[in-house]
Amino acid sequence: MADDLFDPPILADGTLRVFPLGGLGEIGRNMTIYEYEGSLLVVDCGVLFPEEHQPGVDLILPDFAPIRDRLDDIVGVVLTHGHEDHIGAVPYLLRLRRDIPLMGSRLTLALVEAKLKEHKIAPQTREVKADQIDRFGPFELEFVAVNHSIPDALAVAIRTPAGLVLHTGDFKMDQLPLDGRITDLRAFARLGEEGVDLFLPDSTNADVPGFTPLERDIGPVLDHVISRAKKRVIVASFSSHVHRVQQVLDAAVANERHVAFVGRSMVRNMGIAADLGYLDVPDGIIVDLKTALNMPDDRVVFMSTGSQGEPMAVLARMSNQDHQIEVGEGDTVILASSLIPGNENAVFRVINGLTKLGANVVHKGNAKVHTSGHAAAGELLYCFNIIKPRNVLPVHGEARHLRAAADLAIETGVKPSRAIIGENGIVVDLKDGVAKVTGQLDIGFVYVDGSTVGEITDADLKDRRILAEEGFISIFIAIDVQTGKIIVGPEIQARGFAEDDSVFDGVRPQIVKALIEAAESGTRDQHGYQQIVRRTVGRWVNTQHRRRPMIIPVVIEA
Amino acid sequence: MADDLFDPPILADGTLRVFPLGGLGEIGRNMTIYEYEGSLLVVDCGVLFPEEHQPGVDLILPDFAPIRDRLDDIVGVVLTHGHEDHIGAVPYLLRLRRDIPLMGSRLTLALVEAKLKEHKIAPQTREVKADQIDRFGPFELEFVAVNHSIPDALAVAIRTPAGLVLHTGDFKMDQLPLDGRITDLRAFARLGEEGVDLFLPDSTNADVPGFTPLERDIGPVLDHVISRAKKRVIVASFSSHVHRVQQVLDAAVANERHVAFVGRSMVRNMGIAADLGYLDVPDGIIVDLKTALNMPDDRVVFMSTGSQGEPMAVLARMSNQDHQIEVGEGDTVILASSLIPGNENAVFRVINGLTKLGANVVHKGNAKVHTSGHAAAGELLYCFNIIKPRNVLPVHGEARHLRAAADLAIETGVKPSRAIIGENGIVVDLKDGVAKVTGQLDIGFVYVDGSTVGEITDADLKDRRILAEEGFISIFIAIDVQTGKIIVGPEIQARGFAEDDSVFDGVRPQIVKALIEAAESGTRDQHGYQQIVRRTVGRWVNTQHRRRPMIIPVVIEA
Repeated sequence: MADDLFDPPILADGTLRVFPLGGLGEIGRNMTIYEYEGSLLVVDCGVLFPEEHQPGVDLILPDFAPIRDRLDDIVGVVLTHGHEDHIGAVPYLLRLRRDIPLMGSRLTLALVEAKLKEHKIAPQTREVKADQIDRFGPFELEFVAVNHSIPDALAVAIRTPAGLVLHTGDFKMDQLPLDGRITDLRAFARLGEEGVDLFLPDSTNADVPGFTPLERDIGPVLDHVISRAKKRVIVASFSSHVHRVQQVLDAAVANERHVAFVGRSMVRNMGIAADLGYLDVPDGIIVDLKTALNMPDDRVVFMSTGSQGEPMAVLARMSNQDHQIEVGEGDTVILASSLIPGNENAVFRVINGLTKLGANVVHKGNAKVHTSGHAAAGELLYCFNIIKPRNVLPVHGEARHLRAAADLAIETGVKPSRAIIGENGIVVDLKDGVAKVTGQLDIGFVYVDGSTVGEITDADLKDRRILAEEGFISIFIAIDVQTGKIIVGPEIQARGFAEDDSVFDGVRPQIVKALIEAAESGTRDQHGYQQIVRRTVGRWVNTQHRRRPMIIPVVIEA
Repeated sequence: MADDLFDPPILADGTLRVFPLGGLGEIGRNMTIYEYEGSLLVVDCGVLFPEEHQPGVDLILPDFAPIRDRLDDIVGVVLTHGHEDHIGAVPYLLRLRRDIPLMGSRLTLALVEAKLKEHKIAPQTREVKADQIDRFGPFELEFVAVNHSIPDALAVAIRTPAGLVLHTGDFKMDQLPLDGRITDLRAFARLGEEGVDLFLPDSTNADVPGFTPLERDIGPVLDHVISRAKKRVIVASFSSHVHRVQQVLDAAVANERHVAFVGRSMVRNMGIAADLGYLDVPDGIIVDLKTALNMPDDRVVFMSTGSQGEPMAVLARMSNQDHQIEVGEGDTVILASSLIPGNENAVFRVINGLTKLGANVVHKGNAKVHTSGHAAAGELLYCFNIIKPRNVLPVHGEARHLRAAADLAIETGVKPSRAIIGENGIVVDLKDGVAKVTGQLDIGFVYVDGSTVGEITDADLKDRRILAEEGFISIFIAIDVQTGKIIVGPEIQARGFAEDDSVFDGVRPQIVKALIEAAESGTRDQHGYQQIVRRTVGRWVNTQHRRRPMIIPVVIEA
């Protein structure tokens, strides 16, 4: 959260205001608001996946607080592509106002519609294509094809009288992509010549030197591994990575194997991709799981989810021998995926489990079976030089990525004062070719846990972390408040503290004594007695065990 | 834990038994027991650091259970080198029997003695050198110099009438190490010619193709980064990595900067290393922290701990602005260290924090400022070919590493049936040049938490994980057991569940109703009523919130 909050001024006519609600200082929950003369345009509305210091949280949403009272001002949501960190929070926004129009490419809309269907929401949509110019309220939008690890991604140029903004969404600059749809540098150049006043580039890989390897270089490696496999082959990847799956299908065909899609999201997304023509499925190659299980081992490839070690996904269940696909000696498992920082332990646990079962596990650590979807530093330099933006606000990255992107911009000639490194909630106003920071809104984390949204707070997560580190001890006592004499109890419950309850035998007499002494010193109220119990147990546990569990005393009048 | 436990036979005279108590299936808590005619030799006795699914645990020890009743049979402990994962559990072993002799090189013994001093134990020690032959009971030991990321590491050859064993400890084969002390391949060759019956190699990097880069290639990079730094330089590394620190000192001298050691273990270990002559400290270069803080920014290097993002170590505290060293715009921070899997989030949090403060953070992701201490696959191939062992039991690795090491052995000609991939507690008997698996002991995790050892169990950790994921709800009720009427309560306490206690208003009447109905159906006992409360609250929380907190009902008779 930003340190120095300050409110922006009332927005003057003719000025464009930009404020990101997510995606700055983190990889995920991308969402940026553009405001012009009373109208709001939203670009992307994604989720963030929790880290281990946010236990039990299912998803983290952008903080809608700054626009919650202005939902009717929203003219529409532009979705740059169909990844969860760009579309995952759309259902939560539409719960607040169902008829906000969504704009995006064909595949993007198909994926968000499938998601919304699970939430029983039928959205208003408007399909757009690269090179198309469209309008939402005062915003003229021009869409530009970009290449990413999902097909049909779009950058969006936003024109208002205040100037021209270019917002890339996620992209890289693979010069030989599988579908031939490159990031349109001619369009970037044309916009650059028109004059880009503010540029919001994807910064995820800005600290990676050089260039992202070609996606098409993965195919031959997959083919080589599959050609040498003597038994079953299981490939795990992201369920939206159509081009990676395409390469698996092609390698399967080349090696006379059938393919079964495994995992709910894999089956659903590949169904959509095939129906819309993004995935080229050779005739007769796809079989269902049941058929595949009965085929000879060397005639089948299972294309599954779970490449990040997610405990409930197919791959982790296989490694725990808790899936219909029984992995055994001589099988080959390929993790054709990135390893998202923070998931290492989970992924290596799965790899170790599969190895113990006898599988040969191929992953990006020992073979070139993955390439990133984001532009590395070398590619970003091309972008900055082609676009020559007047002002830059790097997005989609942790602090180190935003800084690296800003440094690249500066090296290509952007004035240091015009390269803005911000946090979520930063307010940037654009007028006459100058972008200025005019405010810093207070942006929190909105946690989804079970069916609750925003009910779990940072205070609850702090409690959870203490519970996880130390467990708790609760002490229930019914007492005669006049004498401090215990009528019922102490009834001591502990979890995560020690296996054997007899450890508490030492503290019981101390509690009895402390309460009587407290009564003698004049304590009469519940709160006072509870404090005594907390202190007595806390001192005992610290001295005897050098530990600090959560202590919850409940003292009631008998 | 191993799936199929079975007891080994009584050990016959003339047979050597080997059973590892730690270090197989994990990186850490290395400890292997050698048994011959009633005597036990211990090689290494280290700790394992906990992962996030072991919250609140400080350390994990090898499970001493198989030798706990045989402490008097232990003739000694050989310590191959001074890293925590090889010496960290020595204090806990010596607590069980103080006079077990420790054998190791000069630096190794100095480090373990410093550690034991904190535990108020003065050990019996016997210093050994490379090429020395010594004896512990029936075990003739020959020590071999090996190169690692700490000076003075030793492999140990163990001779008994049952055959010759070679146990490498951690090593790599840097051919141009800073101290000129290479892994002694001539000795490996000589032992190989004598005939190595069982080889236990360090497998940590067995799945890394090629060769580990030279340590001396790090120095010029450090020098380059420091020469370009205009303000303060902070270097973080492991506090036992004497050669890395040496290179920092040399780079500081070359750039006319002084060095201050920061962090308790860094100060202590570098004191030991300098006193014993392992660290060459140029005259007048070291200053204390206070002096350094008052020197010009461009004249000082802070050499600190915390390279793994440990929250209480110097580097994390700097990034939180909670340390005397205030990091600011233009300072340079170098993480000259590995990134141990599982620590990514912590390390990147520190990097982001330092970046936000304006520092330029250099780490192995963007510069060659680290090289591993373990032999990669290419080096292990040399070893296997020089030694030509009859049997191999890879140690010090997760399942994937052990498997990779076994595969390398097999590729160099070891029979597949003689390459044993084991788990902790595997029992291998060696006689007449044949190593056979003869048992699988039950080896658990022994957790240190605060001052307690082994008090926290896996069941407690499971509770902690549930508490972390979901929090808990406790319900205290005093009841008339005849009627089910509540006399006091329900007193509901929850943590990690929701910020606002009013969420429970919905369930209170359900509890009241359920208890009266239970009494009407004949319930009279505490346990029965508690079950009713648990079920009522559980159903409510699942239906209303789709969550599963721990529910702790306490019902007592009023």
